[in-house]
Amino acid sequence: MHSYQIGILGATGAVGQKFIRLLEDHPWFTITKLGASERSAGKHYKEAVHWIEKTELPADIAGMTVSECRPSEFEEVDFVFSGLDSSVAGDIEQSFAEAGIPVISNAKNYRMHEQVPLLIPEVNPEHAKLIKKQPFDRGGSGWIVTNPNCVSVPLTMSLKPLDDAFGVEAVVVTSMQSVSGAGYPGVPSLDITANVVPYIGGEESKVQTESAKLLGRLKGDTTEFRDFPIQATTVRVPTIEGHLLSVSVKLEQPPSGIEEVRQAFTAWDNPIDGLDLPSSPQRPIRLYEEERYPQPRLHADREGGMQTAVGRLRPGTVMDIGYVTMAHNTIRGAAGGAILNGELLAAKGFLE
Amino acid sequence: MHSYQIGILGATGAVGQKFIRLLEDHPWFTITKLGASERSAGKHYKEAVHWIEKTELPADIAGMTVSECRPSEFEEVDFVFSGLDSSVAGDIEQSFAEAGIPVISNAKNYRMHEQVPLLIPEVNPEHAKLIKKQPFDRGGSGWIVTNPNCVSVPLTMSLKPLDDAFGVEAVVVTSMQSVSGAGYPGVPSLDITANVVPYIGGEESKVQTESAKLLGRLKGDTTEFRDFPIQATTVRVPTIEGHLLSVSVKLEQPPSGIEEVRQAFTAWDNPIDGLDLPSSPQRPIRLYEEERYPQPRLHADREGGMQTAVGRLRPGTVMDIGYVTMAHNTIRGAAGGAILNGELLAAKGFLE
Amino acid sequence: MHSYQIGILGATGAVGQKFIRLLEDHPWFTITKLGASERSAGKHYKEAVHWIEKTELPADIAGMTVSECRPSEFEEVDFVFSGLDSSVAGDIEQSFAEAGIPVISNAKNYRMHEQVPLLIPEVNPEHAKLIKKQPFDRGGSGWIVTNPNCVSVPLTMSLKPLDDAFGVEAVVVTSMQSVSGAGYPGVPSLDITANVVPYIGGEESKVQTESAKLLGRLKGDTTEFRDFPIQATTVRVPTIEGHLLSVSVKLEQPPSGIEEVRQAFTAWDNPIDGLDLPSSPQRPIRLYEEERYPQPRLHADREGGMQTAVGRLRPGTVMDIGYVTMAHNTIRGAAGGAILNGELLAAKGFLE
Amino acid sequence: MHSYQIGILGATGAVGQKFIRLLEDHPWFTITKLGASERSAGKHYKEAVHWIEKTELPADIAGMTVSECRPSEFEEVDFVFSGLDSSVAGDIEQSFAEAGIPVISNAKNYRMHEQVPLLIPEVNPEHAKLIKKQPFDRGGSGWIVTNPNCVSVPLTMSLKPLDDAFGVEAVVVTSMQSVSGAGYPGVPSLDITANVVPYIGGEESKVQTESAKLLGRLKGDTTEFRDFPIQATTVRVPTIEGHLLSVSVKLEQPPSGIEEVRQAFTAWDNPIDGLDLPSSPQRPIRLYEEERYPQPRLHADREGGMQTAVGRLRPGTVMDIGYVTMAHNTIRGAAGGAILNGELLAAKGFLE
Repeated sequence: MHSYQIGILGATGAVGQKFIRLLEDHPWFTITKLGASERSAGKHYKEAVHWIEKTELPADIAGMTVSECRPSEFEEVDFVFSGLDSSVAGDIEQSFAEAGIPVISNAKNYRMHEQVPLLIPEVNPEHAKLIKKQPFDRGGSGWIVTNPNCVSVPLTMSLKPLDDAFGVEAVVVTSMQSVSGAGYPGVPSLDITANVVPYIGGEESKVQTESAKLLGRLKGDTTEFRDFPIQATTVRVPTIEGHLLSVSVKLEQPPSGIEEVRQAFTAWDNPIDGLDLPSSPQRPIRLYEEERYPQPRLHADREGGMQTAVGRLRPGTVMDIGYVTMAHNTIRGAAGGAILNGELLAAKGFLE
Repeated sequence: MHSYQIGILGATGAVGQKFIRLLEDHPWFTITKLGASERSAGKHYKEAVHWIEKTELPADIAGMTVSECRPSEFEEVDFVFSGLDSSVAGDIEQSFAEAGIPVISNAKNYRMHEQVPLLIPEVNPEHAKLIKKQPFDRGGSGWIVTNPNCVSVPLTMSLKPLDDAFGVEAVVVTSMQSVSGAGYPGVPSLDITANVVPYIGGEESKVQTESAKLLGRLKGDTTEFRDFPIQATTVRVPTIEGHLLSVSVKLEQPPSGIEEVRQAFTAWDNPIDGLDLPSSPQRPIRLYEEERYPQPRLHADREGGMQTAVGRLRPGTVMDIGYVTMAHNTIRGAAGGAILNGELLAAKGFLE
Repeated sequence: MHSYQIGILGATGAVGQKFIRLLEDHPWFTITKLGASERSAGKHYKEAVHWIEKTELPADIAGMTVSECRPSEFEEVDFVFSGLDSSVAGDIEQSFAEAGIPVISNAKNYRMHEQVPLLIPEVNPEHAKLIKKQPFDRGGSGWIVTNPNCVSVPLTMSLKPLDDAFGVEAVVVTSMQSVSGAGYPGVPSLDITANVVPYIGGEESKVQTESAKLLGRLKGDTTEFRDFPIQATTVRVPTIEGHLLSVSVKLEQPPSGIEEVRQAFTAWDNPIDGLDLPSSPQRPIRLYEEERYPQPRLHADREGGMQTAVGRLRPGTVMDIGYVTMAHNTIRGAAGGAILNGELLAAKGFLE
Repeated sequence: MHSYQIGILGATGAVGQKFIRLLEDHPWFTITKLGASERSAGKHYKEAVHWIEKTELPADIAGMTVSECRPSEFEEVDFVFSGLDSSVAGDIEQSFAEAGIPVISNAKNYRMHEQVPLLIPEVNPEHAKLIKKQPFDRGGSGWIVTNPNCVSVPLTMSLKPLDDAFGVEAVVVTSMQSVSGAGYPGVPSLDITANVVPYIGGEESKVQTESAKLLGRLKGDTTEFRDFPIQATTVRVPTIEGHLLSVSVKLEQPPSGIEEVRQAFTAWDNPIDGLDLPSSPQRPIRLYEEERYPQPRLHADREGGMQTAVGRLRPGTVMDIGYVTMAHNTIRGAAGGAILNGELLAAKGFLE
């Protein structure tokens, strides 16, 4: 039913490689075009890439010739996934949208654009409608959709059921982020081996603004941001995959007890249930009862890296409740999130 | 001037080894007696110990014969430092105090005892007076003094200047704790390599109650606990030494700006200044301005592992301020803290 | 065609858990019985185990009641896999064999027994015949088969093609072994975080004797050991899964060049090709051409953890050639190796 | 007696920072000049550097203005230590030597130059005489001296006593190298966390040629290289400081037993004993008897990082003996080694 030819922008980078791995046997999307920098263009992909995935570079991709990231090179594709670095994503993604090629992007550049949806299918699928308001392509076939920062994903995924049930009033969060979040080469081993670095540039403000947009509601041509405060401290720890967050939440209508909060998570109504999206986890949120869980190394990969874990749910003394949450930062929080966005948009008819 | 013969209880354990290393060239305290379990008693220390310190086992200690932890074996010493495991510390420490031998303990057993001071010299030196009220030895020469849990140290050290200046109203804290905090053998490498474990048994309640006692005030024969709430999440990360805390604080009298908070730290009046205690750091609290600092691997050892680091001080959105703080958990937060307590008690005349 | 009910001895340990995970959807073998220590017996498996695998504890196993490791409890099974600790494996495995229950064991106790095959299907499948000579059960249905130590596996897997083609004359090897090789709790994180420990008790002699038996030939009722010397240094490094070996080999008939050695690996005739064993990797030995490969974290899982990797093949100056080799120590080098042995024995008719 | 003003070339790099730390309280050498790239020149050192040392940036250095690495800027100094990157060291070091300024370099560029001593004071102090033959400055005051690669140091330090006593005939070595060996930013954490990378570009040939020169003897105007073969495998492991080597050695005159080898180490006559060089370790080689020692994290810092550790000494089966050896790669194997060279040259009168 759904069958699309797609391109990957930024195909040789860490996010690009993840797109390639995750799409290897995808039932709807087939990679027919790879875009990278001028330096890589013209080479076979296997010559251009420093492959860092655990799985084998797929043979059919290995032999493809890399193109420059210009719309004229991508005329055959139905849309592109963008894993471009933010230093170049702004111009390139705009040029694709203007040329009528939809862009489903992991880059941060357009996340705060008023008519660009910042999208998590389970959280705010209705924001997809903003596409129709975008200025890039008056013909209407070119547009940009983004997925949030890798910390905002588990944060908003875990806040959504709470917000629906009790209303979120304030959040204090400390995120312990894995090294893959910085891309490749990313964090020097001399900095992080047996260490914690208590600062990640630009991350704390992203967590605040992106969450406010994700949990906001559509109003006319734009999104009305939620206005509860989020006090975030983002630190780097020596894990490979999976950002773990320690979260304390003040609720508007405090629950009768922690059991009611537990039920808010387990009884939460996933808005994309029934769409049967290929990358959608069976349980978007998994509530762990074991106190020592979830752990990045053990659980980040669960359900193909698309599940958000919640654990250590307990009453608080300063805020109403406390818990930890975790998601796979380079799958759910990056390439996998973008692919799920693509699937949602396909299922909803935006890609016809 | 000060010259004491001392014993170490639990001398073969991780904390006991740290006592031995830190006291190697101590100007006041000389180790003359080593106590350990029945299994070790009678052996030369070097045969009984699985030495895990980086420095050489001191030659004079290596050849000493280990005794059982019975008061009758320790009659010659002026007092003992206890690095005993909590499973045995209760009875043994009581027996020493009852026999008239002062016990300066790192164990948790008596920390909440009404007449036992839980002591950090820079935070609550006046609590030492509780010694006089203790029931263990009516003759008055035997007593117990404890130092707090390794997380409570940087937390209360950093809260003290804030409490003095503005009054602390509420605290939300996430601690990222190093593996040495669990002793030896402690945390299995299979659990923590490239991982985070979001739970440390019993730690969160300790942080709350110990901080309340440390920042409390003497009232008659006991301590009146401070009653502001602390919401704590304590997690294990793969660092070796140094617990790093992400702290958010609500203040009773909010400061005019972050500069006023900075001054509260830098202008703070250290109550033991002038005592010239050998293990006292020149700057008990170091305020780092570099956003990427402090880091456990780089800075835990500063000032012999006795300095508390504070960094990333900034205004908050939910609580008034946020910062990170760190201290060396097995020095400042354990053996070194106990030694500083011994020095304070010696300087104040409690050990005459 | 093949359908067996099997039991797991030592089911709650690290190796036992791996058996359970690897057999979850096995086409031939169904777990119907779990054996563990007296302390665990009578409990549901999920209560008895401290589950450390990344995947979910299978639901059907979780609810099974654990038995003691006595043959009378295992009468219904066709055979058992043993992940018992060597401290108890000797007596228990013998009692099962004597009771007529075949034991396919990962324990070291019987590896050097003259009539017990030490078996790697790709290396010495013909050794399986020794089963018929065993003294344990005169009726003939009870016997013991063992798989080698986790270092001996990649060493002999990589030496076999060389031995077939050129004859091995001497080997110098340094193995860099992951922490999972020591079981659970195993290596303390304080010992190995950001460190190397240059000694693993008993490991070096095992590498020598096991390799000599594995590459030996059947002679009457026993195995004639190969007699070339192996000089081994076995060290622990902070990796999770996958033992990497640096190997230097002197050959009896030196090759004309490194290309001839490369062909010895790629053209090697796998003796179990054609048997279609479910756990058999498509390529038992994978020769990496990239100088930076193989790496434990990236490649240990390839082909379900059953593939042996070889890389950095090059001419030597002291010995004829040098290379590195790696295998997954808890799959190929333990539970997975035992399962492949079970499959071979089933395919060859030893389990009728 | 000895008092020198010195400059540091490459002062902002990882090696340059180590020079600054190690020279902070040096009794003979005072840093009066800092050289770095054009980008840093003109700035205060504290603005130009990304300080990665554990100790505080010395206050007097912090305020110094960085110069470009041109001889005209360094006229006031007696000599320079060079921590320059090899991409620029060739031209710059030559220009200093030609201008009459002695260069004591950690860079690899001139290590193989026929008249440039590759110097370890305890191994080949007599090679210093080559200075007199150098072509750079006919006036004779400008010259270049180099120290070897960080792996060659523990290798030749440990081979020297063996060579003196028995003659070395062949060596097989596998080095497990820490991440600091690659400088900063160096090894990406994504590559090495919980991993081993079995290749370090260019390292294996350096080990061979440098050891041959270091253990060679002066002959006329040059060095006659030793010609025994060294088969080296150099791999990266996730340690911070300290390269650990697994070494197997064939000896010309095999010892009567391992005890004789032990004595060769302990009775070895250190040629610089009696010179009282400030950075010279009391025991240049420490022989550990504990099987689990030496370990990088525990022992690399011993004697200020200047001691070479040897352990696990035992008879071999392929080669005569086996052992492990370790040295601190960025102190003994880099900046500290260069400083010791400077001290030797000062003591021997080369710096008058």
